[in-house]
Amino acid sequence: MMDLKEKLTVLNKWEFKKSAYELLIATAYFDDETIAPKSGQNYRYERLALMAGEIYEISVDPKIKELLFELEKEELDEVTKRKVKLLKKEFEETAKIPQDFYKAFTKASLEAQAAWMRAKEQDDYTIFKPHLIKLIDYQKKMALYRRPDSDPYETMLDDYEEGMNKKAYDEFFDLIKKELLPLIEKVAKKQIIKDDFIHAYYPKDKQAKLMEKINCLLGFDKSWGYMGISAHPFTSGFSNNDVRVTTSYDEHNISSAIYSIIHEVGHAFYEHQIDAAFEGTVLKNVSSGMHESQSRFLENYIGRRKSFIKNYYPYLQDLYKENLKDVDLDEFYRGVNIVRPSLVRVDADELTYPIHILIRYELEKGIFDGSIDPNELDRIWNEYYEKYLHVKVRSAKEGILQDIHWSGASFGYFPTYALGSAVASEIFHYMKKELDLDSLLEKGDLKAITDYLKVKVHRYGALYDLNTVLKKSFKEGFNPRYYIDYLKEKYQKLYQLD
Amino acid sequence: MMDLKEKLTVLNKWEFKKSAYELLIATAYFDDETIAPKSGQNYRYERLALMAGEIYEISVDPKIKELLFELEKEELDEVTKRKVKLLKKEFEETAKIPQDFYKAFTKASLEAQAAWMRAKEQDDYTIFKPHLIKLIDYQKKMALYRRPDSDPYETMLDDYEEGMNKKAYDEFFDLIKKELLPLIEKVAKKQIIKDDFIHAYYPKDKQAKLMEKINCLLGFDKSWGYMGISAHPFTSGFSNNDVRVTTSYDEHNISSAIYSIIHEVGHAFYEHQIDAAFEGTVLKNVSSGMHESQSRFLENYIGRRKSFIKNYYPYLQDLYKENLKDVDLDEFYRGVNIVRPSLVRVDADELTYPIHILIRYELEKGIFDGSIDPNELDRIWNEYYEKYLHVKVRSAKEGILQDIHWSGASFGYFPTYALGSAVASEIFHYMKKELDLDSLLEKGDLKAITDYLKVKVHRYGALYDLNTVLKKSFKEGFNPRYYIDYLKEKYQKLYQLD
Repeated sequence: MMDLKEKLTVLNKWEFKKSAYELLIATAYFDDETIAPKSGQNYRYERLALMAGEIYEISVDPKIKELLFELEKEELDEVTKRKVKLLKKEFEETAKIPQDFYKAFTKASLEAQAAWMRAKEQDDYTIFKPHLIKLIDYQKKMALYRRPDSDPYETMLDDYEEGMNKKAYDEFFDLIKKELLPLIEKVAKKQIIKDDFIHAYYPKDKQAKLMEKINCLLGFDKSWGYMGISAHPFTSGFSNNDVRVTTSYDEHNISSAIYSIIHEVGHAFYEHQIDAAFEGTVLKNVSSGMHESQSRFLENYIGRRKSFIKNYYPYLQDLYKENLKDVDLDEFYRGVNIVRPSLVRVDADELTYPIHILIRYELEKGIFDGSIDPNELDRIWNEYYEKYLHVKVRSAKEGILQDIHWSGASFGYFPTYALGSAVASEIFHYMKKELDLDSLLEKGDLKAITDYLKVKVHRYGALYDLNTVLKKSFKEGFNPRYYIDYLKEKYQKLYQLD
Repeated sequence: MMDLKEKLTVLNKWEFKKSAYELLIATAYFDDETIAPKSGQNYRYERLALMAGEIYEISVDPKIKELLFELEKEELDEVTKRKVKLLKKEFEETAKIPQDFYKAFTKASLEAQAAWMRAKEQDDYTIFKPHLIKLIDYQKKMALYRRPDSDPYETMLDDYEEGMNKKAYDEFFDLIKKELLPLIEKVAKKQIIKDDFIHAYYPKDKQAKLMEKINCLLGFDKSWGYMGISAHPFTSGFSNNDVRVTTSYDEHNISSAIYSIIHEVGHAFYEHQIDAAFEGTVLKNVSSGMHESQSRFLENYIGRRKSFIKNYYPYLQDLYKENLKDVDLDEFYRGVNIVRPSLVRVDADELTYPIHILIRYELEKGIFDGSIDPNELDRIWNEYYEKYLHVKVRSAKEGILQDIHWSGASFGYFPTYALGSAVASEIFHYMKKELDLDSLLEKGDLKAITDYLKVKVHRYGALYDLNTVLKKSFKEGFNPRYYIDYLKEKYQKLYQLD
């Protein structure tokens, strides 16, 4: 019989091994998404599928499973207790997935991603459609393997945000529908903001320089962070001191790269500032909603604030004199906060953004409760965009093919984007009570802000779920009211309503 | 009992798995050398050390070892026979290395590489020295584990070039000493070539553009190749259609990046053009000398030829008018072929290059036969440079710290660089009989040349050893005379000797 210390040593050794595989697989994916030559993809994906099988075998090691059941009965400190709980949950569920099924699923998912890229390039949904239908089926089966008695979509929702479910999301999105749709209608009618200068021609090479400037301003340091280029921007935290973000440049929208990089750097700070003791463990696996609260916080609550824009705007203006010489700070500030119901989520403004999520949430719910035929998905996608945002989808690239998530079999992920935005509002509400935000931003002192986020949010990693973190730091659980109020106040003022 | 077909299926499955681990490890190293944030290195190296242990375990799988012994007795086709021979050799030797020793060695080697980088940055050999002494000791022990009855350095030489040994290299380097040292003396006295324009100021960003142009000219295609930036240029063939090269820019030497990238692309074509049936197998592991013959071929025999330079020079001249407007093609051609005994191997001219190798060969031989005290290595390094090239080493960065090889415990590797140059000469001799080289180069038609190399050399991969490839393609084994004659003819003409 092992004593507690020995048991924990075995567990830690196993987590270390798992983290080594995870690091190498993450590195290979980052490489694949950013720089890897296309022709080598087949060779790469075949081998990544094998590695998925290898890490699966590690993940279901029966000796560790047994150990976790034993550890659960022991007197454990808070951190270890949480670790054991999260790992045990993973174990119980992963062990229920047949390995051959899992391997086939991984291969299908990699193929789907490649197909999605091709489909997007050629603006042809039919290339991706059979893959998507296959993935939906795979993911439904997977959820049922894992929790046979649970509604598959509930399982997926809980995966990305522990404790969230259809009921909670329904309430949240009902509030959004009720409060924001009328506001959006009013704003859309009142076209008083100009942003044509944002859509002038902004050559890539100079945008790269601007991103350097913005990263520097945010404190995204090259000693622990790296920025690459990929089709769809993302963040990958390899370790506390190795966090990768990517961006992509739209030469006809300067706001796109600026706000996507600020967004990703928000994620990056989370990964960077989690308690170093959690490195390489399950406690680094922060939920999607929590993670998104940090990217949204930096993007919208800091990045779109005039006092922040003041720091990068003169540099930007100088870089592209031809486009911006006659645009003053105030105009630019209003320009990047313009509300315009549109087709593409990642380029959406702050106010219509949750509606893009609402649409995906309703589609996913429908796919998995059987009320939507996956074969009709593109048609219904387009219908919903007309119904909620009154915009017409004219190309699949700007419609159902726009997001990478489904191509990676990530269903249940999207709702956390809106949840994150709302959580960010709550944090913003409390931060303003403690920090003189605008005077910090005027000075370009972002450190006080990222330090605050470290103490109140980041350091906890996955030690607590979303509600517990909020209660611990602000003595109040999740409350979507702050989000609704913030958006109403900001946009009523900007659009001179009432 | 398995039949032959079943046995081969098991072997192939094992090779596939091994190739997946190799791909991910290679990707992580490429990432580490090119873009990975420094602060994450410790986390990364600890996990790469674990993965080295994992692949070690796969490599010594006793079931595969047994299988190889069985297969050896079977009637096999040529390809399978060679594969079994190479794998069995690897197995027999690797199995003799204790796993803990191997893990410790890998960790020491990673630490040594990090120390070498720091040492080079700070131009301080003492940072690297203890690591180097440790690695020498490790590598000696490793060689003795593998072949207890063999001289350790002979083992290392054979590792990098099957069939080569001290006797053969001694003869080769004696010829170089006898024939080339007097020529170098004569040339050094006759300073009739100017190259000050090569050492003007060449900003990096434009060099990057030039490299794009040169890669395009060489047919190094982005669909199967990628160029990164690293401290020391290298090539890593992930698969036939995913080959990575790196470069580094010296803003005061335009020739440096040009010839280093042509060199690496020479390696890249080898990796790209090996028979696709060998992908992911031991038959991709071409010997170092063979590999170097291809990089040297492209660098010196093609890249430094006037008819080739004509293709990129007008673009280069236009890019840096301030440095080159008064330098004509002839002058530039002579400039990049100038002979000047110097300190840094990678920037050495074609004629003095083998002397840099001679020095390393004599040092390595001395280290491992006990005639050189590793503690005295830097002093003796400097002595040899004075003796053979009459140059004074003034900084470790340009002396013993210049090369990455020893920091990765690669001893026995250097001699293959001179061997490769000589093999390239032999290939050049025969190619000229079949192709009208200058007229192809005038037209910028490199494809005929790389196709020739594919047929005569590349496609074979590791199916044959160096001598066999040469005999098969040219009906003559390795003959260093072509090298000596080529250098004498070229440089006597350039320097108007005799």
